[in-house]
Amino acid sequence: MSKKVGIIGAGVVGTAIGVVLHDKGYEITGIHDKKSESTKTLVDRIGCATYASPQEVSRSTDILFITTNDSAIPAVVDELAASRAFGCGQVVIHMSGAQTSAILDKARPFGARGLSLHPLQSFASLDMAIKNIPGSIFSIEGDQDAHEIAIDIVNRLKGEYFFIEQEAKPLYHAGACVVSNYLVTLVNLGIKLLQITGVSKELAGKALLPLIKGTIRNMETAGIPDALTGPIARGDISTVVKHLDCMEEIGADLLPLYSCLGYYTAEIAREKGTIDEEQRQEFQQILGRAMVKQEMIK
Amino acid sequence: MSKKVGIIGAGVVGTAIGVVLHDKGYEITGIHDKKSESTKTLVDRIGCATYASPQEVSRSTDILFITTNDSAIPAVVDELAASRAFGCGQVVIHMSGAQTSAILDKARPFGARGLSLHPLQSFASLDMAIKNIPGSIFSIEGDQDAHEIAIDIVNRLKGEYFFIEQEAKPLYHAGACVVSNYLVTLVNLGIKLLQITGVSKELAGKALLPLIKGTIRNMETAGIPDALTGPIARGDISTVVKHLDCMEEIGADLLPLYSCLGYYTAEIAREKGTIDEEQRQEFQQILGRAMVKQEMIK
Repeated sequence: MSKKVGIIGAGVVGTAIGVVLHDKGYEITGIHDKKSESTKTLVDRIGCATYASPQEVSRSTDILFITTNDSAIPAVVDELAASRAFGCGQVVIHMSGAQTSAILDKARPFGARGLSLHPLQSFASLDMAIKNIPGSIFSIEGDQDAHEIAIDIVNRLKGEYFFIEQEAKPLYHAGACVVSNYLVTLVNLGIKLLQITGVSKELAGKALLPLIKGTIRNMETAGIPDALTGPIARGDISTVVKHLDCMEEIGADLLPLYSCLGYYTAEIAREKGTIDEEQRQEFQQILGRAMVKQEMIK
Repeated sequence: MSKKVGIIGAGVVGTAIGVVLHDKGYEITGIHDKKSESTKTLVDRIGCATYASPQEVSRSTDILFITTNDSAIPAVVDELAASRAFGCGQVVIHMSGAQTSAILDKARPFGARGLSLHPLQSFASLDMAIKNIPGSIFSIEGDQDAHEIAIDIVNRLKGEYFFIEQEAKPLYHAGACVVSNYLVTLVNLGIKLLQITGVSKELAGKALLPLIKGTIRNMETAGIPDALTGPIARGDISTVVKHLDCMEEIGADLLPLYSCLGYYTAEIAREKGTIDEEQRQEFQQILGRAMVKQEMIK
């Protein structure tokens, strides 16, 4: 099996994957980026060739990573297809969480295979990406007869993997967005509730951090639903009603999100077994009503 | 100023506050717990007296902590008031996040002062509580002429503090519940979305953890709104529409929570400045509509 890898798009992810695959024994045959200075880090670090065109990279290699911005992938694929730069048996890989391997379909008439290989990681910087890609959990989606290439990559990186069907990939991506992007929204809600009471945004963020970290530790050890604590888990309806009444008076714009989260929290408390079916229904009636008190559709 | 402290209720919080205040030079005059074996840890550790009744504890001390379960505090206060066990100038403190100092009001006719002093921490175990209370950020709510007692306690514990008005305390508590209890609900949503695609609950939880931790690091360094990334922050409406369409088909029960969180996320993206006012409105129209597609009120 060939271990030759080419990379089109030398941003954080493209550069990082080049470095870590080089470290694990893959031969990086060449890289290309529209901005020639973007390739410098990778070339300096692993001494690979740079090519003036994506076609040259593709023709140099058996495993082609297209690690441009998501929105630029289709144009790269179009360009490579138009100049017949895909090869038979070649495996073309992108690392987007949002896109499926379908955006690589134009490589198929040439006998190439398409894969999406996505590490569940956040890449705040190149150094973090190089550090965090090895050992990551990857999703693999795409042509079955290219799966072994993806598995070999993951194994060499000492990671784990699972397969996603193309049709289900948006839900997978939504799940990743929930725990990263929507986590910001959740913490922002907590901060705003404290801000209403007069605490500064900075102090509120700092004050809530130990609770956030404690809860994550608790989820890691106890799992869900057992990690759930607090008034809903205890069946303490009066405390939740106090929250809702107070919010309606001095923080009404936060009521729908608070209530919606509470509505789903009641399901988890029921699953944990610390509230009964009747309590779940009572919580959900109260929270469901509070949720629609504010008009969301403008 | 007296540094004598008595404790009624020797659970995790009561025991931990006894240990850390003893370490910081307060004299623990006595403790009481309904279950006599509960006092053992504290007595063993700091060698204080145990009393058979809450009245004896109260009479032995100038600063009285009532650290029973929230729901038991009013009965303790009633009992102490009925037997005139509160003293003039005494400061009575509870450490509940949900309750205000109002549940200590019956101590006031005796010239005692009431405070709620709440550390923003999660207490998974006694050892964790003893480790985490020092350096915590505390909220202080209650009688102004007892504030200096609370400030002295926080200062000795090398913590920080802020004041909360009694009327606003439910919002403060709601904020704490959001980032601890509702964080479980948020992560559960992410896990469920991955589970629908065929990933096991265990692997999904493990796979999402690096994203969660990366986002928290990002919030710590960049703050909100700058820590927000992802499709909404990028103004990538088509990706969000894909999420919604896919969810409607194979995970419709998760749609209201996903959409509600997205609705508020659009506000943060607007605040960050990476989407304009028109994009915010478009996101919120789409997400607001999706949110109410499921009937929440049963």
